[in-house]
Amino acid sequence: MSTENYKKTVIPEKVVARLPLYRRIVRNCLNNKIKVISSEELAEAAMVNSATVRRDFTFLGSLGVRGSGYDVEVLDRAISQKLGAHNTWPVLIAGAGNLGRALTNSPGFNANGFFVVGLFDIDPGVIGAKVGDLKVEDMSALSRRVTGLRNPIGVIATPPAAAEATVNLMIEAGILSILNFAPILLRTDESVRVRNVDLSLELEILAFYLNQT
Amino acid sequence: MSTENYKKTVIPEKVVARLPLYRRIVRNCLNNKIKVISSEELAEAAMVNSATVRRDFTFLGSLGVRGSGYDVEVLDRAISQKLGAHNTWPVLIAGAGNLGRALTNSPGFNANGFFVVGLFDIDPGVIGAKVGDLKVEDMSALSRRVTGLRNPIGVIATPPAAAEATVNLMIEAGILSILNFAPILLRTDESVRVRNVDLSLELEILAFYLNQT
Repeated sequence: MSTENYKKTVIPEKVVARLPLYRRIVRNCLNNKIKVISSEELAEAAMVNSATVRRDFTFLGSLGVRGSGYDVEVLDRAISQKLGAHNTWPVLIAGAGNLGRALTNSPGFNANGFFVVGLFDIDPGVIGAKVGDLKVEDMSALSRRVTGLRNPIGVIATPPAAAEATVNLMIEAGILSILNFAPILLRTDESVRVRNVDLSLELEILAFYLNQT
Repeated sequence: MSTENYKKTVIPEKVVARLPLYRRIVRNCLNNKIKVISSEELAEAAMVNSATVRRDFTFLGSLGVRGSGYDVEVLDRAISQKLGAHNTWPVLIAGAGNLGRALTNSPGFNANGFFVVGLFDIDPGVIGAKVGDLKVEDMSALSRRVTGLRNPIGVIATPPAAAEATVNLMIEAGILSILNFAPILLRTDESVRVRNVDLSLELEILAFYLNQT
């Protein structure tokens, strides 16, 4: 596949979903001073098979594979480039309860180009409270705070009953990418990308295996 | 496929990982009084293709498909049975910070047979605090609390630096299923099943698509 061609190739959604995981594994290698990783080792850590890893990596362009595997630094750069790590994405979190606070302070929400710029709530008892370096703002200030931001990402960490209204508020404010942690399936029209995260999904997978034993 | 055969069939890990999501979609139908759902509708909601849905469902045994789709109640029962919803799983959470508190109170951790029986921390300033109906216990009490529990599931909601020690503590206490929310990849020997959850992974997927526009 020529450089010209792969740049135009649309990466399938399933492959995109695995890229952050591959990067996490690769960064783990970097931290442990491991310089080369095989597709088999990557596959095991990512819980897929090695053919999948090799096929996924065709979307990353030329990786200059060594006999024994991939160069970890090259791989990190190639994945990061695809994921757009040279960009920055301001994150606005709605809901300053335990989950909203946990996300505001979590390393993953303040790395790889992400940074939490605002935490919002409707509860007067919570507005004004300090969470990390931020002060909880009134939800009504969200729209104003979005103005002028490039590529803002909205995060729903509200109770389920408030989730739908909050999504609508975010869309009206011009946010087109939303991550939903509320335990309901949110749907929007196609111009807005919503990803629903279910904190208990992995719990149910664990239970499945417990059930087999 | 006869009843005899499908019972013995090992369900591939990828299929298992989709079952909780299918159930969530099906429950959403139940709540909205929708009685029948097609594989196409399920596929769209689960972001897979409909052939995958139909293939996945072969592992659920006979679903008595109607012309227009699957009976939602039959589907809910079949998936729940596979996921072992007739069982109960006590959940023990290590780390009573914002994330541990959010998980303790989250609906998904207190439904479908799961119930949080203990929340633990090492910080004397936190031990004894009330979170929902629970009191935060000293981490040293975890081992004692596991004794006599059937199918306990341990959850790591500690800072990353404490995660590895906490996993070892859980394994020594006899916990064989662990859900790790700390942002490090935990590995254990094969007798213990660990699933690593990355809260920022979906954020990175959203960013990928923002990067394309």
